[in-house]
Amino acid sequence: MRLLALTVSLTFIPLSTLASEAPKSPSEILEQSSPSEWKSISPDNLLINTLSDGTQFIVYLNDFMPKSHTSNIKILANSHWFDKANIVRVQDNYVVQWGREEGTSLPENVVKQPPAEYEFPAKQYKFKPLKYRDTYATQVGFVDSWAVAGDGKDLWLPHCYSMVGVGRDMAPDVGTGQELYVVIGHSPRHLDRNITTVGRIIYGMENLTSHKRGSGQMGFYENDSDKTAFKSSILASQLPENDRPKYEIIDTNSKSFDAYINARANRGGPFFIKPAGAVDICNSLPPIRKAK
Amino acid sequence: MRLLALTVSLTFIPLSTLASEAPKSPSEILEQSSPSEWKSISPDNLLINTLSDGTQFIVYLNDFMPKSHTSNIKILANSHWFDKANIVRVQDNYVVQWGREEGTSLPENVVKQPPAEYEFPAKQYKFKPLKYRDTYATQVGFVDSWAVAGDGKDLWLPHCYSMVGVGRDMAPDVGTGQELYVVIGHSPRHLDRNITTVGRIIYGMENLTSHKRGSGQMGFYENDSDKTAFKSSILASQLPENDRPKYEIIDTNSKSFDAYINARANRGGPFFIKPAGAVDICNSLPPIRKAK
Repeated sequence: MRLLALTVSLTFIPLSTLASEAPKSPSEILEQSSPSEWKSISPDNLLINTLSDGTQFIVYLNDFMPKSHTSNIKILANSHWFDKANIVRVQDNYVVQWGREEGTSLPENVVKQPPAEYEFPAKQYKFKPLKYRDTYATQVGFVDSWAVAGDGKDLWLPHCYSMVGVGRDMAPDVGTGQELYVVIGHSPRHLDRNITTVGRIIYGMENLTSHKRGSGQMGFYENDSDKTAFKSSILASQLPENDRPKYEIIDTNSKSFDAYINARANRGGPFFIKPAGAVDICNSLPPIRKAK
Repeated sequence: MRLLALTVSLTFIPLSTLASEAPKSPSEILEQSSPSEWKSISPDNLLINTLSDGTQFIVYLNDFMPKSHTSNIKILANSHWFDKANIVRVQDNYVVQWGREEGTSLPENVVKQPPAEYEFPAKQYKFKPLKYRDTYATQVGFVDSWAVAGDGKDLWLPHCYSMVGVGRDMAPDVGTGQELYVVIGHSPRHLDRNITTVGRIIYGMENLTSHKRGSGQMGFYENDSDKTAFKSSILASQLPENDRPKYEIIDTNSKSFDAYINARANRGGPFFIKPAGAVDICNSLPPIRKAK
């Protein structure tokens, strides 16, 4: 029993432990939500990465904010350019990074100097606020089922655990998409508005976070033998329709999402003694599930 | 060069990349700090854990807030009780947990029902505030080189990445210290004031975070073969003086610490375009270094 001590501190509270009058848990709310409160994710925005060890991870690409960068990544995927990538860096409490050898030529139609897509005019989007304080931004919330941060004028995709960004050199317009990284560890929000964020890993995070940390400076692998090679990196839309993994994401404008956030901020059940009364944006990423 | 893209987004900015007039980086500030701004850590507060794979991790125990729990953990270490522990759970973006089989008898002098040490009267401590907003607490800051959160009346040790807590059952006073966990991933601050936090891993986090995620519910290992056994878990004070690892921590009341926090909140150098202007408490844990 004691080994289950932390059980109820999790999102997934077994139904059986709750009295029928108890407030619903976050997972119960999702289970009881209506199918109309979920939106299917386009196969053209799912980047499926298969590693040489047989594991997979899937990036959900945002195609309405960092358009130039997302377009580049789709060109690279459609060209099978990333099939020869390696995991080159694992820095504890920071990032896992992958790419190909420096200097590998890019497909012709990749934009070589995409604009720095760090912030986007708030007026272009329907912003739904999360009502809790944030250390790094004056406002946080959601746009079309993506977590965002903002300052009243602009919005941006924050560097939360599992968010994917585009590596760049010193100049802001040199992140072509040929090197990507994902945040592992406590969210490094100071990177917000300094690097373009393009997506979110929705499947297989544990297949990246459990990799050996690199022994070189900033977690780069010093020996090629430490690197994990990719088998392939393609969009779901490149697969025959029946072979595509299908996912859906909750509509952040739905009632069930409101209830879910409220339940995350005020955890109930027999374990919790003092509900936090708040939840931060990086613990509020909209739930995703396999589509039936 | 591109592979170093994320370099300067890190704490450790190479000195050579900075113009001499540039503001000092966090690491430069620490390098140039005075020896008097550092405090040595008592060997009685360093729990040295050696795993069967030869790796180590070290927990710095807080002995002035959760006194009953810390006392229990020291009794267990002095009795070599934890030498037979195993890593039993690795849940991605949450915790790594270790302990012995349920029902293993405890040394007689272990307090079987320690009080729930979740909060401590603020008036007992010299609190130094961090001036930035926090989602979960009305105030955050430092007490004697420990990161703390508070509500004006009480203070507590927050669940930041690398903080160690004591597993418990449903009742608040049943966390004896026989099962410990460490936070990995984005800091689950909703656990604050619901579980006793007792320390912080100051060495070897990567030797825990890179372990295989458990396939059972909540990341528990389903097969014994997945568990990693301990070789030993003892206090540095149990070792001959010359064999003890020696660490020191920055004095959070020092000028160098103020400068360090300011530099973390306002990152300079050639890479950063928009300094965040803030840093959260879990990205502000006081620096620790090997003592000479």
